[in-house]
Amino acid sequence: MPTAKVLIGGTWRAARGDSSFRAHNPATGEGLAEEYPVSEWSDCDEMLTAATEAAVALRSTSSDKISRCLIRFAERLEARRGELIEMAHLETALPKSPRLGDVELPRTMTQLRQAAAAALEGSWSLPTIDAKLNIRSCLAAIGPVALFGPNNFPFAFNATSGGDFAAAIAAGNPVIAKGHPSHPGTTRLLAEEAFAAIGETGLPAATLQMIYHIAPEHGLRLVADPRVGASAFTGSRRGGLALKAAADAAGKPIYLEMSSLNPVVILPGALKERAAKVADDVADNCLAGTGQFCTKPGLIFLVDGPQTLELIAAVKQRFESRPPGALFSAPVLAGLSDNIATVRRAGAELVAGGAAGSPGYRFGNTLLRVEAARFLNHPEALQIEMFGNATLLVICRDIGQIVEAIGMLEGNLTGCVYSHTTGEDDAAYEPVAAALCPRVGRLLNDKMPPGVALSAAMNHGGPFPSTGHPGFTAVGIPASLRRFAMLQCYDNVRPARLPLILGDKNPGKAWRCIDGQWTQGDVAAKG
Amino acid sequence: MPTAKVLIGGTWRAARGDSSFRAHNPATGEGLAEEYPVSEWSDCDEMLTAATEAAVALRSTSSDKISRCLIRFAERLEARRGELIEMAHLETALPKSPRLGDVELPRTMTQLRQAAAAALEGSWSLPTIDAKLNIRSCLAAIGPVALFGPNNFPFAFNATSGGDFAAAIAAGNPVIAKGHPSHPGTTRLLAEEAFAAIGETGLPAATLQMIYHIAPEHGLRLVADPRVGASAFTGSRRGGLALKAAADAAGKPIYLEMSSLNPVVILPGALKERAAKVADDVADNCLAGTGQFCTKPGLIFLVDGPQTLELIAAVKQRFESRPPGALFSAPVLAGLSDNIATVRRAGAELVAGGAAGSPGYRFGNTLLRVEAARFLNHPEALQIEMFGNATLLVICRDIGQIVEAIGMLEGNLTGCVYSHTTGEDDAAYEPVAAALCPRVGRLLNDKMPPGVALSAAMNHGGPFPSTGHPGFTAVGIPASLRRFAMLQCYDNVRPARLPLILGDKNPGKAWRCIDGQWTQGDVAAKG
Repeated sequence: MPTAKVLIGGTWRAARGDSSFRAHNPATGEGLAEEYPVSEWSDCDEMLTAATEAAVALRSTSSDKISRCLIRFAERLEARRGELIEMAHLETALPKSPRLGDVELPRTMTQLRQAAAAALEGSWSLPTIDAKLNIRSCLAAIGPVALFGPNNFPFAFNATSGGDFAAAIAAGNPVIAKGHPSHPGTTRLLAEEAFAAIGETGLPAATLQMIYHIAPEHGLRLVADPRVGASAFTGSRRGGLALKAAADAAGKPIYLEMSSLNPVVILPGALKERAAKVADDVADNCLAGTGQFCTKPGLIFLVDGPQTLELIAAVKQRFESRPPGALFSAPVLAGLSDNIATVRRAGAELVAGGAAGSPGYRFGNTLLRVEAARFLNHPEALQIEMFGNATLLVICRDIGQIVEAIGMLEGNLTGCVYSHTTGEDDAAYEPVAAALCPRVGRLLNDKMPPGVALSAAMNHGGPFPSTGHPGFTAVGIPASLRRFAMLQCYDNVRPARLPLILGDKNPGKAWRCIDGQWTQGDVAAKG
Repeated sequence: MPTAKVLIGGTWRAARGDSSFRAHNPATGEGLAEEYPVSEWSDCDEMLTAATEAAVALRSTSSDKISRCLIRFAERLEARRGELIEMAHLETALPKSPRLGDVELPRTMTQLRQAAAAALEGSWSLPTIDAKLNIRSCLAAIGPVALFGPNNFPFAFNATSGGDFAAAIAAGNPVIAKGHPSHPGTTRLLAEEAFAAIGETGLPAATLQMIYHIAPEHGLRLVADPRVGASAFTGSRRGGLALKAAADAAGKPIYLEMSSLNPVVILPGALKERAAKVADDVADNCLAGTGQFCTKPGLIFLVDGPQTLELIAAVKQRFESRPPGALFSAPVLAGLSDNIATVRRAGAELVAGGAAGSPGYRFGNTLLRVEAARFLNHPEALQIEMFGNATLLVICRDIGQIVEAIGMLEGNLTGCVYSHTTGEDDAAYEPVAAALCPRVGRLLNDKMPPGVALSAAMNHGGPFPSTGHPGFTAVGIPASLRRFAMLQCYDNVRPARLPLILGDKNPGKAWRCIDGQWTQGDVAAKG
């Protein structure tokens, strides 16, 4: 029987259920010692009931307290960093340095601190006051939030510590976290620290609850449960669409990050000007994290010609000279292999890689190419996401054909255009950017999309099927908090009965829109 | 063959399709002379193609021009007010004065002018600038918007002139409008004026397209079409849920306003203090517009006792002494009759009304009552929306039972609490409001919910199934524009390539959030 305990209703206890699983070390493919439970529905049911009570208690909890909990959690992560990094490295094979220790864990702590600041300040909720009519509104907690964490960021997108967690808590909601089965040990350590921070700062004990795994049908039931306020999922398109259908049918908001090819257009002037830099950018960003980023450039558009042939050779050389990293799991390896096969069957030719490797879960760094004419004829198969270290180059006749191909693209998180720095590509840029813009959440110039900055202006979102709604972002505080909120309006409500943030007096430094003016001040006394 | 023409791709032309319909005068039940066409799918298909082109053109249209079009439209409505009011009165039986001429038409013009101001100013898009990292984002047009107008506001919610129309256009999107078949003549007049304003101000000709009617399956196909950006629907729950399922499956945002009972809690102190005023408020607001408001109080909670018996008698007297108004259509009359029967079968007793009347589409002003214990046992049947002049009183043992009953409520647009003005009800208010708040979009004190003010702080939205997403509002500019928008981020994009609203220099008076501070100023020069 599994020894690992789940966190339900403020108690670490044995899960209910008969089955269990183990994580594997992706670098070797060996199973790890610890067994983790697969929860039955009764665990979910109990979490939902406890979360409902916690949601009520959180509604009358001060934002100061919520803020302190998130800060305390960040501090506790810092204190346990050695153990966290060891465990995440073991379960994901991501490098301890710089990736886990110098990039992802600090990012996770920064997110928690930014969320803490946003919760305390309150501007995230867009407080809006019509002083004359005495109508006031703001966004407010939506209720228990169910989070399904992905495999690719064991800290920064973990359901117990990542961006969705920080946003949901900062918006005043309890979290029901389902860890990703490829790194359960990491999830356990994070949940321990979050729960300790919750206890230290006096938040309701069920502010975070955590299970390691459930059968898919229980996931569908969870996001559709009447007790849930909203859900968020980061992962495969298949899983995301199934959860979306279940949540949609129940009228429950669900925020999804499902898949993205992140098209990059490299205009001729950029190649002429800085071919080696472009080749480095392509290889670095296609292979970072073994290509297992949501924003990995998976589709690169080039104009045919000698410079492009040289670029392809340069990228091929880089792909072949770098040892392939480990993939997260056997399913990721199998999926990558299958998807590369699909793309090849649709007519893409192999430039580099194309075969599984060893030890552990590895696949050769894979570069593919296809003519645009073929891409235009098989836009579906050639837009299969190859999650992992594989990228497809699309060779176009001219700019017009690039624009035509962009017109066939599904929604993506990002789109990127490399161009000459002094204007040589400007005529080409215009139609390319105009075609890309409505199809992507973030448009970049001369820069690859990974490295999603923790900025208030970030959009880590985009049109379907990259996400489920193009108006929301999963990264970028305070906007990411708004996903886990409902709009609440107070019409003619007496002053003492208003939430503090909507009172005449500004309780802190929140920006509020009073009679059309954004201000950190109070409502002016009636003159 | 119908003589009325549809507006497609910038041309008034005959619809494609074999069938037609007529509107009726609700006051008499008589069919009106004009025949209107039911469009086949090919009309929708043509509109979608034209709208796609218009959407591209609108992306490079100045907000000044869009703003002028909306203002010009409002001016043209004013110029044609006599004809509009005559036609709407004929088709809806709503009084010419005050309702149509003094309230709804002015409201419609105000909405258009507010939307024009919002488009011009730009703050609606929440422009956000991270000057240090050069990441900038704002909401931007989502693409062609399909609108399905309701029966109950021939001007202010008409798909060719109402709040959704104004919001979609102001956000930069072309509109595909499906008029409501109960007032096609009004829709035609409005579309004529909108189209003339579009022509006068040089917007793309397909900025508004209009058809009168389509088969339900074509509606489902329309909201799911890849060329659509988003849709909005105001109407019945059944229709809304069908459209939602179709749009959801295609990953297309749809904003729905489907049904709402708008619970009102009348606390004992309020009755003690101002029983006659409360009785007037109840009768006035339950019967206004023959109860055909989305925010009609449909469910009223009272604490049992002599005061409550007196209130019931007073409301009964008012219901019986006022002549019932006309309902919009034969289906509305049939629906009201059916739903009252369902509610009675579930145990509600008739206090007043309960039978159809004449002439035209009329039903006696109907007051029903039920004990809370029964409500708690049949919460589904007793929450059937009785769209029209019928309201259910729920008689509770005490405040605790009111809170318990509120716990059974589905999501509603509004919730209202009447209480004693000097504190006598304060202890009761707290648990009642705490229970109501998460179940409603707007909480009111001592005021009935109809009369949805055109305020930036308004929320005309609420939890499912009153709408499809609790984070959005259909009334209240600028927030209502944000439904028809996608978040677009510009990461490292060169200055000359940015949308004006995200440039270092503020192009006008937009409020922008620059490095966490809301300002109407420019991005500070790098120091």
